[in-house]
Amino acid sequence: MTDTSTAATISEEQRAIEDTLVETVVASFEHASDPRLKQVMQSLTTHLHAFIRDVRLTEAEWQTAIEFLTATGHITDDKRQEFVLLSDVFGASAQCISVNNTAYQGATEATVFGPFFTENSPRIESGGDIAGDAPGEPCWVEGTVTDTDGRPVAGARIEVWEADDDGFYDVQYDDDRVSGRAHLYSDEDGGFAFWGLTPTPYPIPHDGPVGKLLEAVGRSPFRASHLHFMVTAEGLRTLVTHIFVRGDELLSKDSVFGVKDSLVKDFVQHSASTPTPDGREVGRTWSQTRFDIVLAPAGV
Amino acid sequence: MTDTSTAATISEEQRAIEDTLVETVVASFEHASDPRLKQVMQSLTTHLHAFIRDVRLTEAEWQTAIEFLTATGHITDDKRQEFVLLSDVFGASAQCISVNNTAYQGATEATVFGPFFTENSPRIESGGDIAGDAPGEPCWVEGTVTDTDGRPVAGARIEVWEADDDGFYDVQYDDDRVSGRAHLYSDEDGGFAFWGLTPTPYPIPHDGPVGKLLEAVGRSPFRASHLHFMVTAEGLRTLVTHIFVRGDELLSKDSVFGVKDSLVKDFVQHSASTPTPDGREVGRTWSQTRFDIVLAPAGV
Repeated sequence: MTDTSTAATISEEQRAIEDTLVETVVASFEHASDPRLKQVMQSLTTHLHAFIRDVRLTEAEWQTAIEFLTATGHITDDKRQEFVLLSDVFGASAQCISVNNTAYQGATEATVFGPFFTENSPRIESGGDIAGDAPGEPCWVEGTVTDTDGRPVAGARIEVWEADDDGFYDVQYDDDRVSGRAHLYSDEDGGFAFWGLTPTPYPIPHDGPVGKLLEAVGRSPFRASHLHFMVTAEGLRTLVTHIFVRGDELLSKDSVFGVKDSLVKDFVQHSASTPTPDGREVGRTWSQTRFDIVLAPAGV
Repeated sequence: MTDTSTAATISEEQRAIEDTLVETVVASFEHASDPRLKQVMQSLTTHLHAFIRDVRLTEAEWQTAIEFLTATGHITDDKRQEFVLLSDVFGASAQCISVNNTAYQGATEATVFGPFFTENSPRIESGGDIAGDAPGEPCWVEGTVTDTDGRPVAGARIEVWEADDDGFYDVQYDDDRVSGRAHLYSDEDGGFAFWGLTPTPYPIPHDGPVGKLLEAVGRSPFRASHLHFMVTAEGLRTLVTHIFVRGDELLSKDSVFGVKDSLVKDFVQHSASTPTPDGREVGRTWSQTRFDIVLAPAGV
């Protein structure tokens, strides 16, 4: 942890004044009728004041923060959620996912949900194709769904979605296309397979306040290449995750901190002449990967 | 400090995962070219993650927070600054004022600036009236401006502004009136006097997200009655502060945490027949107070 405190030079008198203010604000939430709301507000107060005191935030910096939040609010609309991006680039989204999907006996790790999931994706059979008209290199994905005792999970609903090789999800186009997304169900042995696209990198929207912030701190807006999964099965914890591509140079600098080592997979490259697992003629290079999914029990 | 942590039940494995994420995000700011920006972003990351981890923020709560910030952004415009209100009701504005105006040898304490100051207030002579057409009970205010060595400060610019007794500042009306505000200068002996209005309580705007939050936690939107001052003099630290009315029942629950004991003053009530200090006929009850202002040196 980097020590960012400059508070050591503060007089005892001043420290007492600042402490008293924190205690006063914390006490102001004492009568919230919802005990959880009280807990969250009091903790937020404590950490917010600790931040202001640690860095000795200047009034000009406070003003800049107000202007930043205002601009973030003004660019946000039905299609653009800049506050989610803000949470993402501070790793707050990833940390929230982490605390709500705690490590459990080898269960597959969760990662960020992202803004591009949609309800009512097309259903495909096992071995089907999620690409629709999305351009990109075909990628054969196969694996199994099991519980943490190693038992196959039949009938798990597997939602899959990804960007095309121009770096856009279907919902980012204005023509109502549905592509690069589908759902399927695991078979009796927990197995599943589908054709998707080899994941490619793309930037988070970076023409707004969050993009300016990333630029100011020398960070890239790019996400490591990935393929989204959401897996639900009765009695088991819902898993929202991605798989990433081993060797992608962006793995160590994913703009939203979604990468976890256990989610990085080998994507084996094949020539156009290599036979595919299901005999399909793809007529170009293709790739292949394996993702074995382990679901924790619900409620852990 | 209330202990809001529930983190004690977290496994070592999970704790390590969360620690690693914090370290990764902190490291992502390592290459910011501005060292101050790097310090602020790294500290903010550390405290934000500590908050999420301490309360084990749920994904539904995170979603509620995103929606709250979005609504806060959407109500904010040129005339309404809901993010400032949000900062105010968490005492963040007051803490920022505190760390930038540290206690110094009896210098008058600062408090929140508020959104109602305007440039180019009318100038009055010492003993003049700031009320304009603002309705309210006349209040005679007098005092001196000195430095922390007790030397009179001549020619200090004293800006004064306050709400009328309907609880509104001039800028909250849409008729371009200028009332309840003025500036004057201290005389050769550091003395000043003016007619204002006896301060009355009013709520901060509470028809938006911040008002809903206050209601949810059982807090009042009202500010303790107060009169604003901003005092500037060459070589001395600019003072932004209020004075408050002793006996006001709102002193202990000011919605923006602006009250400091040293700023609470006696406002002596007089009958209509009591002669005024300057012989003016006010024709109604009036009040009287004293505010002796002590300015710290610039740069402390």
